[in-house]
Amino acid sequence: MRTARARKRHRTNWCREVHAVALTLASSGGWSVAAEQVVEYEVRPIENVLDQTFEIPDDGDPTLDVLGRARKQSPRRLVVIDREVEQIYGDKIYDFLNRHGVEYRPLVLPGGEATKTMRTVFRICRELDSFGVARRSEPLIVFGGGVLNDVGGMAASIYRRGIERIVYGTTLVALVDASVGAKVASDYNGYKNRLGTYRPARLIIADRRFLGTQDRRRLADGLSEILKLGIVCDSRLFELLEKRGATVLNEKFQGETEPGDKTAVAILEAAMAGMLSELHENLWEDQLARATYFGHTWSPKIEMRALELSRARLPWRRRAWLMHGEAVALDMVLSVLMACRRGLVTGEECERIVAVAKSLELPTWDPLLDDSDTLAAGLEDSIRHRDGKQLVPLPRGIGGVTFANDISHDEIAEAVEQMRSLGGQCLA
Amino acid sequence: MRTARARKRHRTNWCREVHAVALTLASSGGWSVAAEQVVEYEVRPIENVLDQTFEIPDDGDPTLDVLGRARKQSPRRLVVIDREVEQIYGDKIYDFLNRHGVEYRPLVLPGGEATKTMRTVFRICRELDSFGVARRSEPLIVFGGGVLNDVGGMAASIYRRGIERIVYGTTLVALVDASVGAKVASDYNGYKNRLGTYRPARLIIADRRFLGTQDRRRLADGLSEILKLGIVCDSRLFELLEKRGATVLNEKFQGETEPGDKTAVAILEAAMAGMLSELHENLWEDQLARATYFGHTWSPKIEMRALELSRARLPWRRRAWLMHGEAVALDMVLSVLMACRRGLVTGEECERIVAVAKSLELPTWDPLLDDSDTLAAGLEDSIRHRDGKQLVPLPRGIGGVTFANDISHDEIAEAVEQMRSLGGQCLA
Repeated sequence: MRTARARKRHRTNWCREVHAVALTLASSGGWSVAAEQVVEYEVRPIENVLDQTFEIPDDGDPTLDVLGRARKQSPRRLVVIDREVEQIYGDKIYDFLNRHGVEYRPLVLPGGEATKTMRTVFRICRELDSFGVARRSEPLIVFGGGVLNDVGGMAASIYRRGIERIVYGTTLVALVDASVGAKVASDYNGYKNRLGTYRPARLIIADRRFLGTQDRRRLADGLSEILKLGIVCDSRLFELLEKRGATVLNEKFQGETEPGDKTAVAILEAAMAGMLSELHENLWEDQLARATYFGHTWSPKIEMRALELSRARLPWRRRAWLMHGEAVALDMVLSVLMACRRGLVTGEECERIVAVAKSLELPTWDPLLDDSDTLAAGLEDSIRHRDGKQLVPLPRGIGGVTFANDISHDEIAEAVEQMRSLGGQCLA
Repeated sequence: MRTARARKRHRTNWCREVHAVALTLASSGGWSVAAEQVVEYEVRPIENVLDQTFEIPDDGDPTLDVLGRARKQSPRRLVVIDREVEQIYGDKIYDFLNRHGVEYRPLVLPGGEATKTMRTVFRICRELDSFGVARRSEPLIVFGGGVLNDVGGMAASIYRRGIERIVYGTTLVALVDASVGAKVASDYNGYKNRLGTYRPARLIIADRRFLGTQDRRRLADGLSEILKLGIVCDSRLFELLEKRGATVLNEKFQGETEPGDKTAVAILEAAMAGMLSELHENLWEDQLARATYFGHTWSPKIEMRALELSRARLPWRRRAWLMHGEAVALDMVLSVLMACRRGLVTGEECERIVAVAKSLELPTWDPLLDDSDTLAAGLEDSIRHRDGKQLVPLPRGIGGVTFANDISHDEIAEAVEQMRSLGGQCLA
């Protein structure tokens, strides 16, 4: 049995995984195993998806329909739906499922960071047990934003060691960030995303029409992740936000005016393509120097701290929580100020970035920045996450990035002082 | 950005993952992402590993030493140790770690199925947080059997979306089954292995000397998984067990006699190579018709039911729990009797199999077999696990396998009656 084997490939009925493998005698006298997994997924933009009817593709057609159906496959689906989405679109969603002959059980859950717990993950797993889904051909369906994508994805990724899922992104964060990558997670032990896996949804339906019913704050939250890409990856995207970001926010990406419509589509397309382009070569984060970590060095701790304080039992200690993109915006401004002090961006570029953040109604100051312990703990945990290095992404001009490994606590404190003096927007 | 990309490959410092990727415009007008992950791991047999000293390999050397060290890497390690192993080998393990300059924190946990919970997984995750491990270069070390491999592996696989681990298998089940595959898991919601992932240890140290201090029941437990391979994959291995299984059990794989020594090594080698050979082509279980599911159709439910009853609050309801291999043995005998009734194995082959199970001190009867609800629920859940099909592995002669999809409750009941009439060994 100790011989090298020919490499074989085979496909599953989901066309997800293709393997080439080898079992060889190791130099130690034991065995070396190498196995290869191909993960495939698709982001499919569709407008007004709930109003349409989709045919079940033929057996020979590798495309899945929007409900993950191929002929002969079971029509049973557990459907996780965000509570607010259900209030607005519930009837349309159930009509849509009925129209396609889906035998479904809805599971309505609240969104928001407070839901991002293993408790919610377990709740979904128990529902998968009681509904009784088959392991491969009955994907979990999620209608929701970033948090439900993450906890739904975590549940789907560990339930029976992984079942498939299909995500209908209903928030801007889901469309341009959470659901288009492979990462799923739950917060744990006071840390953001502490437990998770890499498991992309098999299919992500990106329908901007869901954004029309979002409140401004949540749209701004999503614009923060787009601004991130603009600053460190794509100067054209940054300029789009600079010129028309506020219009798109006002029109909620629905294109009430012609330039607003064009810009909404252009921004979404650039953001999704940019994110996929950054991620697809690094789906398992082997490369830890990542441009998309920009704004994500101190923000996880800031976000978790705001969440903790918002629940403080003593009312005079309480404060408002921050949305993910809001914490990211604070981290970005802090990083940009450091980049400016290091001469990586000019004072003018720095001002333009801060002005765009403000125009997108993102915070540029928060009292938590005064808490040097939170900032120090944030950096410390990011260093562990980056395997012992700071690797803090700092913009190099607009559209470029470099990674710093020598940021001192003094440098952080000075940047915080400068940030305070900008007299920025504050949500707390 | 919507163009096809050249395929790229790069290696991490762990040489674990190699990627080739593509981002293409899908026919739907969206994006298709394909990413490839190579998972590599090694099973390294070493005798008396704790008595030896290992050099840290050079940077250029892709081999990891037994503590996952390469030059310049951090020597910090969280070390999970089975409580019984710690009682016997604790001093030797700590000497071993000190001798290699490892800055370690031990985490001593009980083994056994009752430990296989998400509570234990979380316990390990919190310890990883408080010890503060770097994400890539400080692998979790596990000294333990099947259960600690599984829960330790589950913790390592979800902590920060996956850190590496190195396993020192201390039981026969760990050596020939649990740690050589990719599967890690926790029991949940009354189901065995309900939550889990695929994440092999980077390195498995297989040292048969640990088996010398095992109790007979636990060795027999491991022999059950070896017997499984013999019956459905490897008639030579079956014959080894038939001829000298009892001797090897008596000598606890330590080779007190020359034929005993030879057979111990031959059995271990055949079992590990056989298991790897079965697994390596199907590491992610794309193929659901698996020979290694033999003995694993009804046994998960039988094992969990025995565990539940062993904890019953009403003393007259209580019963003894079953070890994993014991439940597997019951399932194997049941399956073999069905195979015999179907003419897949002869009456003589059937008798030989039952006789070997008895000689290995495995149960061939248990009162739980009278509980038709447990058997029905076991089959039902296996059908979901096999995506809607029974796919029950039945031996075809000795060393061969076929998959049945038409087993009725009557057929099961008749086989159970026949099993009772065999008057077999019973541990309850």
